[in-house]
Order: sequence, then C-alpha cells, then structure tokens
Amino acid sequence: MNAQVVDQVRRVAEAARAAARVLANASTALKDTALQAMAQGLRARGDQIRAANAQDVEEARAGGLSGALIDRLTLTDKRFEEMIASIEAVVRLADPVGQIIKEWRQPNGLLIRKVRVPIGTVGIIYESRPNVTSDCAALCLKSGNAVVLRGGSEAFRSHGAIASAIQQALDASGLPRGAVSLIPVAERAGVDAMLELDDCIDVVIPRGGEELIRKITRQSRIPVIKHAKGVCHVYVDEAADLAMAQAIAFNAKCQRPATCNAMETLLVHERIAKAFLPKMVTQFRQARVELRGCEATRVIVPDVHPATEEDWSTEYLDLILSVRVVGSLDDAIDHIKHYGSAHSDTIVTNARAHADRFLQEVDSACVYVNASTRFTDGYQFGLGAEIGISTDRLHARGPMGLEELTTYKYVVIGTGQIRE
Amino acid sequence: MNAQVVDQVRRVAEAARAAARVLANASTALKDTALQAMAQGLRARGDQIRAANAQDVEEARAGGLSGALIDRLTLTDKRFEEMIASIEAVVRLADPVGQIIKEWRQPNGLLIRKVRVPIGTVGIIYESRPNVTSDCAALCLKSGNAVVLRGGSEAFRSHGAIASAIQQALDASGLPRGAVSLIPVAERAGVDAMLELDDCIDVVIPRGGEELIRKITRQSRIPVIKHAKGVCHVYVDEAADLAMAQAIAFNAKCQRPATCNAMETLLVHERIAKAFLPKMVTQFRQARVELRGCEATRVIVPDVHPATEEDWSTEYLDLILSVRVVGSLDDAIDHIKHYGSAHSDTIVTNARAHADRFLQEVDSACVYVNASTRFTDGYQFGLGAEIGISTDRLHARGPMGLEELTTYKYVVIGTGQIRE
Repeated sequence: MNAQVVDQVRRVAEAARAAARVLANASTALKDTALQAMAQGLRARGDQIRAANAQDVEEARAGGLSGALIDRLTLTDKRFEEMIASIEAVVRLADPVGQIIKEWRQPNGLLIRKVRVPIGTVGIIYESRPNVTSDCAALCLKSGNAVVLRGGSEAFRSHGAIASAIQQALDASGLPRGAVSLIPVAERAGVDAMLELDDCIDVVIPRGGEELIRKITRQSRIPVIKHAKGVCHVYVDEAADLAMAQAIAFNAKCQRPATCNAMETLLVHERIAKAFLPKMVTQFRQARVELRGCEATRVIVPDVHPATEEDWSTEYLDLILSVRVVGSLDDAIDHIKHYGSAHSDTIVTNARAHADRFLQEVDSACVYVNASTRFTDGYQFGLGAEIGISTDRLHARGPMGLEELTTYKYVVIGTGQIRE
Repeated sequence: MNAQVVDQVRRVAEAARAAARVLANASTALKDTALQAMAQGLRARGDQIRAANAQDVEEARAGGLSGALIDRLTLTDKRFEEMIASIEAVVRLADPVGQIIKEWRQPNGLLIRKVRVPIGTVGIIYESRPNVTSDCAALCLKSGNAVVLRGGSEAFRSHGAIASAIQQALDASGLPRGAVSLIPVAERAGVDAMLELDDCIDVVIPRGGEELIRKITRQSRIPVIKHAKGVCHVYVDEAADLAMAQAIAFNAKCQRPATCNAMETLLVHERIAKAFLPKMVTQFRQARVELRGCEATRVIVPDVHPATEEDWSTEYLDLILSVRVVGSLDDAIDHIKHYGSAHSDTIVTNARAHADRFLQEVDSACVYVNASTRFTDGYQFGLGAEIGISTDRLHARGPMGLEELTTYKYVVIGTGQIRE
C-alpha cells in the first residue's frame, strides 16, 4: 500500500478516535447546538456546495456515467433543502446516550445499571448521494460517535464541500473537527487503508452495491454491519383478502422499486391463483412491470416470460417481478428460506394460524402480516431517522436509528462489596 | 488448505446450520427435555468420559505440557459433577427466545414488535477445559442456537467423549445431532477451515490467550465477539475509605488472580498514598504478591521492584501487581484510558462527584464504585450463567448470558397498510 495514503488516512482516523472521546462526554445541549450550527453552515455555504456539485456532475457527464448515477449525484435545490431539514430533524430526536436500558439490585446490594454509550468511531463507506455525508454526520454526532466518511469518488468535490462546512460548524461550537471527517483520498487505496485501522475505527457500515459490500466485508479488519440486498417476498395465502393482497403487492413492487425493501418475488397459493393473478397481472402491466413466472403462473396468465432459477434470488431494484405459484404455506416458507435474503417478507392472510406460522418461521429482519414490505424504514418504524437497514444478525437488524448507533456499559455501584 | 479437511468441516457446519433452523422453532419444553437428557447422558457415560480424559492427561504429561495446562485439562470428580450441575442450572433459566423486547403501535395502526430470536449458529474456539464443551452446548441449546465447537487439541479425546454423549441425548430427545457438534480435526487446519464458513456460522466466540484471539480475529470471515484480555484497575481516590479500599484491592488481586476480571494495576491518589500503601503492601506481601511500583510508590514503600512502561499494559493473570501513585482523578482516568483494556475498573471513594466522573469518563465494559472488579461475571451479575465476557463493543459488552446469545427480529402486524 502507498505509504503516503496510509499515513494520511491514519491521521484522519486518529483524530476521529480522539474526537470520539470528547463526544462521548458531550452534553445533549452542546451536540444540538453543533447540529444547528451545521444546518446554518450548510445554508450559508450553499453556493459553494452547489458549485462543487455542479463540477462533479459535469465531470460525471463527460466521463459517460449512467443517467441513474448522475441523478443520484445531482444536488437539486429541493434535495439541498431536504438535507438541511434532515439535520434539523435530528436535533429534535431524543439523545440515546446515557439512557438506562435496565437497572437492578443484586442480593449483595450491588446496584447494576446497563447504560447506553456511543460505539466510538463509526466508518461509513457509501456512494455518490451528497446528502449521505450530512445525514450520517448528524446521526453520528447526536449519538456521540465520531464518524469517518468515505463517499464515492465521483462525488468527491460535493462530499468535500459539505464536510468542510460541517467542520467549520464544529469549530464554532467548540467540538473537535475530528468528529466528522472525510477520507481525503479519492482513490480506492483510501478505503483499503481505512479498513486496516481497527485500533481507531470501531465499526464500518458499508452502503452500496452487493459487490462493494462483499469486498469490504472480506477485506476489513474492523467489524462490519452490512447493509446488503433485499430479496423481499409477498406471499398471498389461500385465506387472503384478495383485494388487500393486490393493493399490498402493488405497493410493495411499484411505490419505489429501487429500494431494498421493495418486493422482488410474489408467491401465490395455488387455490386462489386463478382468482388472483389475472387482475394483479393487469395492474402490474399497466404500471409497466415486466413479469417472470413459474410454469403454473404461465398457465394462468399467458405471455409471462419464464422465470429462471437465477430470478428467484435476484434483487432487481427495478420494475421487474418474479411470480411463483406454491402448493402450500410450507412451500412458501421454504421458498423464502431458500431464495430470500432475510430482509423483509410479508404474508397476506385472514387465517391467524397461517400468519402465526409465517411470523414464527420466516427468520427475516422484518416479517409482516397484511402490510407492505415498504415499511421497513427507520422513519416508518418511528425511529425518527435511519443510518440504514442492517442485513446482519449481530448488534442491529433491520432499520438502524440512533439507538442502534450506541452500545452499552455496566455501571455498578457498591458500598464496599468484595467477592467471597 | 487440505481439501479433505475443508470438506469435513463444511459438512459439520452445514449440519449445524440445518439444525439451527429446527432449534429456532423448538419449544422451551423440548429444549429443557434435551438438556435434562444431556445431563443424564453425561452421568451415564461418566466412565468413558473420564477414561478419555485420563488418556489426554497422560499424553499431555508425556508431551511435557505445563502443570497449569495439565490442571486445566484434568476432569476431577468434583469438576465432572459441576459440569452436570451446570447443565441442570441452565434448565432452570428463562428461555430468552420469543421474549418481546419492545412493542408499539404506529399512527397508521401498524403494530411493531421487537422479538428475541436465536443468532443461528455459534462457533466457539477454546482451549483445554473439558467442561467448556458441555457449558457452551447447554447455553447455546437453551438460547436456540446450534453450536460448532473447536476445543484445544490436547483435550481432543475428552471433548469428543463429552460431545458424543451430548449428541446421543439430542437423538433421544428428537433434536438434530447437528445442534451440538465438534470440529473433527485436531490440527490447526480445522480452525482455518471453520473460519471461512460465513455462510453457515453466524458468529465466532474465541476464548483463550491474547495471541490466539488476535489471530482468529484477523483471519475470520465470520463476525467475531472477542473475549480478550482484562487489564483491570482499582483507583483509590483521595476521598476513599482506606479500610474499604484495602479490602477491595486485596480481593480484586488475590481472590482468583488468573481471571480476566482480576486487578492488574493499583492506582493511588498521592494525598493518601502514605497512609494507604504501607498497610496495603504488607497485606499483599503476606499473600506473596510481587509488587512493581512507580518512583513515588518506591519512595513510600522500600524494596518494591521498579515498574517498566510495559508493566502498565500487562495482564499478569498471576500474583503480580503494578502500583502507581497519581496526582489527581484526571491522572487516574487518563492512565486507565491509555493503558487499560476497557474491561473492568473501579474507583474507591466517598466523594459522589469523583465517583460520577469516573463512571462517566472511564469507558470500560464494567465500571464500578466501591466494589471489587471480580464481580464482572455472568453469575455475579444475575444473568444465571455466562458464555464468557465480551471485550468487544458491538452486540454484547461484558458478561454474556443467554440474552446476549440472541438477536431480534421485527414482527409487524397490519390490517392492509400500504405506504403512501
């Protein structure tokens, strides 16, 4: 590895670790003041930030990047205002640090308190949306964590301009700049160096494509909380209200197909398939959804492409849907266990016993009955905000809000107890 | 890597993963029946187990292993009975699976439940104590997890005989044998192969020496919860009750010096050092504790070896203690932050403000006021049992009991809700 890059990245991470120790003991009032200063600072430097973004967009166009990528990269006026509003919203959220999770007294008189504390330093690796820089900075600051950010190189100037405005606000509030920092290396070597620093960074949260996340997980010496793919299912049970099922399935696929909580596979019980599928398919076709079906689906609805084995485990993130007719609730559960990604899955049914079995046996981060998978989201769950959606099993599963950015320590208060 | 070893280990891990799916849905009654069968099975096969252990011990002696290691390896009658009693104690603990951690209703009517579920498959890498095999098997089974065990090769026959008795009991109870399995390879290659299997094993808990844990953490593709070293401190504040301080410091060092929660460094405020240290040192010397002190300590108490820089961060696990006189509470906190291992640290003081600062600013898994660090223990905390003591920050910190062997899922109950 390039020694200069390694040094640069280490200096950033060490400053973050030092800042984390200050932040862990900062009052809610001080953190909120800094957040307000951040919002004001971004507004005051709006012209510079937009100019930096315009340069990134221009370069991306010249480099022939895809329209979708350029769209994600572009900081429109509306997005700029939303970015500031998000920081202001974080000010209004409860500070998780210092919350007593549990408290009890042992027979020997020891009072044991399980108290929330910040994780320490959080590393976030993401792509080109400029607002992720400020969203993550705000959530980490409120939860008392220092954050080391590594955004996509195509948005390097935008991320830099936003981070610089944030650091000025930290300065003005009397908090260390190291509380929010950006890896100052546009090349991939910046990430490589970052992932070695397990003495400075306590957790890495990668947000992005499957390949990026796999690579980071394999390479990192730092614990990783993956935000990986969602192959989400809607299962329409034989005991479903078919109108409700159609509304839920349509919403889960079409309301925002590019998100990880959108449905990718529709499972339909064979007893109601003939009554359900034709209308459902008509609605999907009106919304230009491309359908890929199993044999039984293709018997009921003509002109559906045959689904391949690969389709069942594909996260389309697009207006494409695979459809399978299943013989039983067991078959539906088995399909989800085999092909799913344990993200979000829903059953539509009026049979309580079927719902209970589905909720018990499908071991996904979020299991639903009679609701759209699109609710898997920090805001929709009432967490106030989210840093992302964990697809890992340890520490945090599903939507991660401020509480999930904390850990705990035990505070034990005695009167001279010793162990016999 | 040897392809045959890789295959063997993969087969074990795949069986564990399949068993985990059964266990996740097993009732408390069924798990408790299996635990009782395990206890009975161990008793019934006591002679075989002891014979296997005698062979291990003989080989260890012939191989010239240290007395301490042979002691840990030896399954005395008392230890054999304790091993069985531990399983019976786990039967009496509450089943964490299915517990509702939180439940709330969103304004749109969605009922959201955060429910405890097993982690899945837990890998445990440990050394030569035979009881660890059955302790871990019992705790993982009760918490609905399959466990893949990899004990030290010097106890290979003992671990095997115990695991075999446990698997027979699982059979008899109608649970899959894969619920508790042993890596069937005595060589290091068995661990290497195990640490690759992130598609079958959800978490690895290494218990053992610092070097072993570092190696596993660097090598593992599976998330690791470290059970690493404890460099624990007792700080005797200027406002301490000196008799209480002496009792706590003596207990923290001498009650069981080979444990990770024993004190390794004693910090003493300079204002009370002259009143405190001579008596304290006399008591330590009577208990044959070797002392290594800073300059100021050596001025007050003659004949103390000088402490080196290395001493301050050393986990002796033995009757050795480093002693430092500090100028202030701040100096004590700084020393602990710099040299400590964030395991367990205590302040002895009658000044509430000093205690509050120490508890707030020392970011260790367990921070104490006026109590011995030796209480950092699952039983002493009232968790009923422990799989170990986490020195990591994510998922679990400090003593890990049954709850810490679980994760959660969100169960969301709707009446047709879709996202607008």
